[in-house]
Amino acid sequence: MPNPTAAMLVIGDEILSGRTQDTNTPYLARVLAEKGIDLREARMVPDIAGEIVAAVKQLRARYTHVFTSGGIGPTHDDITADCMAAAFGVGIGVREDARAILATNYANPEVDLNPQRLRMARIPDGARLIDNPISKAPGFTIGNVHVMAGVPEIFRVMVDGLVPRLGGGRPLVSRSVRVNMPEGLLAAPLGEVAADHPKVVIGCYPFHQDGKPSANVVFRSEDEAALEAAAAALCARVGDKAAAPV
Amino acid sequence: MPNPTAAMLVIGDEILSGRTQDTNTPYLARVLAEKGIDLREARMVPDIAGEIVAAVKQLRARYTHVFTSGGIGPTHDDITADCMAAAFGVGIGVREDARAILATNYANPEVDLNPQRLRMARIPDGARLIDNPISKAPGFTIGNVHVMAGVPEIFRVMVDGLVPRLGGGRPLVSRSVRVNMPEGLLAAPLGEVAADHPKVVIGCYPFHQDGKPSANVVFRSEDEAALEAAAAALCARVGDKAAAPV
Repeated sequence: MPNPTAAMLVIGDEILSGRTQDTNTPYLARVLAEKGIDLREARMVPDIAGEIVAAVKQLRARYTHVFTSGGIGPTHDDITADCMAAAFGVGIGVREDARAILATNYANPEVDLNPQRLRMARIPDGARLIDNPISKAPGFTIGNVHVMAGVPEIFRVMVDGLVPRLGGGRPLVSRSVRVNMPEGLLAAPLGEVAADHPKVVIGCYPFHQDGKPSANVVFRSEDEAALEAAAAALCARVGDKAAAPV
Repeated sequence: MPNPTAAMLVIGDEILSGRTQDTNTPYLARVLAEKGIDLREARMVPDIAGEIVAAVKQLRARYTHVFTSGGIGPTHDDITADCMAAAFGVGIGVREDARAILATNYANPEVDLNPQRLRMARIPDGARLIDNPISKAPGFTIGNVHVMAGVPEIFRVMVDGLVPRLGGGRPLVSRSVRVNMPEGLLAAPLGEVAADHPKVVIGCYPFHQDGKPSANVVFRSEDEAALEAAAAALCARVGDKAAAPV
């Protein structure tokens, strides 16, 4: 059976303005690889409702799972929950269990839980909450879409709580071999190895160190034996140009 | 006249595997903001031809410009040029001017320019070359799609050479104000300011420092006077909680 698939949807002007570096996608990618869920696409969209709704509709039809980050805080630009309700055609309102969880974050909830903060307890109908042990405001799963915070520390604990309860597949195993030769000379033997090992995805990432050309060759596969065979085949072809794994 | 729009398409398994952090999108975002071209979307797709072709077709129909990074090297996984030819329905082959440029990178081009390296001179019919002063292998523009290298240093010089020759718009000006209060208390005055200043896009990015809650409020607009008015309106509302700009 093929592995489940996934897309990441990063929501927020701060990413597309270049102000903030998205570290959530790489984190999710590594967690999903271990779980055997294949991350196939990532998208970044601005805080514009039409864009968010269109992207989530397209992605959720295409992949087993969609993971989102951003836009679930208390301010006017936090519109992700409303967009999810719109994308699924369901209602949205303050949910009592979400409000109760949120209240535990405040010394005096009657006063502190102002209308803006209460926005964080607005959950689309039929969603399941995702735990946020840091700042309490929950994420949620609706259908196959998992809605999480953009703040990296919170995104990570939400992912760590969520992913174990999803069905997984065969984890992707990876191995890197550094080859101390120019990519243009490595390309021919590497192409042969790639053709001989169709179950292994092989990427080549050139770099320079002390002015000398090298490349990291990354082997990835669900089949560890096939991966080892491909790596060994490359090492045999390039001889002492293959350095220690990096 | 509204500003030209753009999307970024990041091509490569190494990004979706979480192995490599994409720094090309933030760089492009900053350059485009100064030029007055609005970056509206970014996508990351794997080294799979069907995915690349589908994404570029969708994005080029939608935005003034599409910028791509990755997949134009000499190895088997470098399939971007072929995908662009397929997306535009044109032929592709080694082009003499591209070959001549590439040859300048080698001491002995007759020998060094092997079939794998020659792949880097394969250019879709009708494309215009993009200069690569670092490793010579050119990028290219076909239609409204600008195809560049994934290696960040090379991506950057290609962008720096390309973007000045594109038509621009009104540069997006931005200003940040740090407000030393919890986002949940800032949300109400900030919402009023946002509602009062529709020409200014306002984002709120909370963080903690020394255990105390703060937020960076980022104002962005093509209209600098409107931006300053919005920032001043927020500062007037939050009083001495507004710290020095960050």
